[in-house]
Amino acid sequence: MATKTPTPEPNGAEPPRSRLPAPPRNIRIVVEYDGRAFAGWEKQKTGIGVQQVLEDAILRVTGEKTTVNGAGRTDAGVHAIGQVANFTLKAKTAENTLYRALNAVLPAGVAIVALDPASLRFHARFSATGKHYRYTFLNDVAPSPLLAPFSHHIRMRLDLEAMRRAAAHLVGVHDFAAFAKDAAPDDDTVRRITAIELVRDGRKVELSLYGDGFLYNMVRIIAGTLLAVGMGRLAPDDVRDILIAKDRSRAGQTLPPAGLCLVEVYFDAAPGE
Amino acid sequence: MATKTPTPEPNGAEPPRSRLPAPPRNIRIVVEYDGRAFAGWEKQKTGIGVQQVLEDAILRVTGEKTTVNGAGRTDAGVHAIGQVANFTLKAKTAENTLYRALNAVLPAGVAIVALDPASLRFHARFSATGKHYRYTFLNDVAPSPLLAPFSHHIRMRLDLEAMRRAAAHLVGVHDFAAFAKDAAPDDDTVRRITAIELVRDGRKVELSLYGDGFLYNMVRIIAGTLLAVGMGRLAPDDVRDILIAKDRSRAGQTLPPAGLCLVEVYFDAAPGE
Repeated sequence: MATKTPTPEPNGAEPPRSRLPAPPRNIRIVVEYDGRAFAGWEKQKTGIGVQQVLEDAILRVTGEKTTVNGAGRTDAGVHAIGQVANFTLKAKTAENTLYRALNAVLPAGVAIVALDPASLRFHARFSATGKHYRYTFLNDVAPSPLLAPFSHHIRMRLDLEAMRRAAAHLVGVHDFAAFAKDAAPDDDTVRRITAIELVRDGRKVELSLYGDGFLYNMVRIIAGTLLAVGMGRLAPDDVRDILIAKDRSRAGQTLPPAGLCLVEVYFDAAPGE
Repeated sequence: MATKTPTPEPNGAEPPRSRLPAPPRNIRIVVEYDGRAFAGWEKQKTGIGVQQVLEDAILRVTGEKTTVNGAGRTDAGVHAIGQVANFTLKAKTAENTLYRALNAVLPAGVAIVALDPASLRFHARFSATGKHYRYTFLNDVAPSPLLAPFSHHIRMRLDLEAMRRAAAHLVGVHDFAAFAKDAAPDDDTVRRITAIELVRDGRKVELSLYGDGFLYNMVRIIAGTLLAVGMGRLAPDDVRDILIAKDRSRAGQTLPPAGLCLVEVYFDAAPGE
């Protein structure tokens, strides 16, 4: 191909691009945070939420007030390494510059891991088609100061085979009313869990849940129910009965938030489409 | 074997065991700590040391003042998952009870992972025959709030092959004067490094050093020198020249303590021997 000499536009034919009102731009971000530093994803009376911290950073860097939509509204104390969010912006700041400037003003407990342009149709919450949450147990007699903020300590050795048999009852499309907090009778409590994995890794046991969506506290209640199975307090088949009975009082306890992490959010289409 | 009926000791033949002066007992502990919580292993003017925290806990639980000898005197900010220490005790408290009681009074940043009786000849520092230190780099463009307290962030992708070629010059018995802080000319700066390993694990690069002992700041200076190689600022063979020249000013910078962790301490004989 021959090198093209740029052809200058005739003067006055149309206003320079910089004077046109900037079209809104949709930005997709991947966010990592330490749940201990915030009162959850959303604004709370009890403290500042990650969403607010991001909106404040955008305002400071671009002068624009915007709403940051998160894919998962994580509770206070829950961590994330792959939270996804989006926001629209009029400022023409290059993505690379925006990425660096936002990270430079964000507090220590939160960072933007990736920032990319997205289609205007992209909405982190409504476009999400699946999520991966991980619940981590420290499964060892000994305590661990380094793992404690990111795990739930169980001294008794967990029976992973029993937990896997119990988990198999939960995979598929089910009414998870028994595993939701504050579900009203007419709420839609049907969700699809696509996979549940349990892995022992040194002193840790990691429970991964993949699904199209999760009810309020659902991951922590499922983790508590599988924990009861792993400790021999429930039989694996009890979990099927609890699911069918839709009785929250028979399921396990809601485990503490420190063990929970939003690992990844899935979308059908690439963010630019 | 027939069941033996316990034979009661004749009254007054000797004083009950509990009235005998207790023989001193040597206790070996494995300690994990978050370096951010302390001013290092030893007592410092700048804050409390891990050693002091352990001695305070022993005093509180047993009423005894004792000295806790650590195998590695880690600097302020350096973490440990396998620090080993020992102390002698007159109290007859069972090891299990002592283990639980000490962990119950220790602050959040430190825990005793294992506690066992040891021979009176066992001294954590003088009996140690080797140590494993790990230096962790976060080697990614993106920051990580969760890894930041336990790593040193390098955005440029490190050349691990060049770093491995450089590291090979350091393995063996050498005079490491170039890699020590404040080494006086007549100090013995000869040490043996038995192995250096470099592994990329997701966003992390982990540098492991195994050796019979390390000089002051030696691991962090070697990590800084290999980092310079990984970034192309030094050639792998420069490291051999720096080693031979024994010139601290030509070696790399002392990297920050957050990336460093004392992983394990080795002893020739089992602790009970």
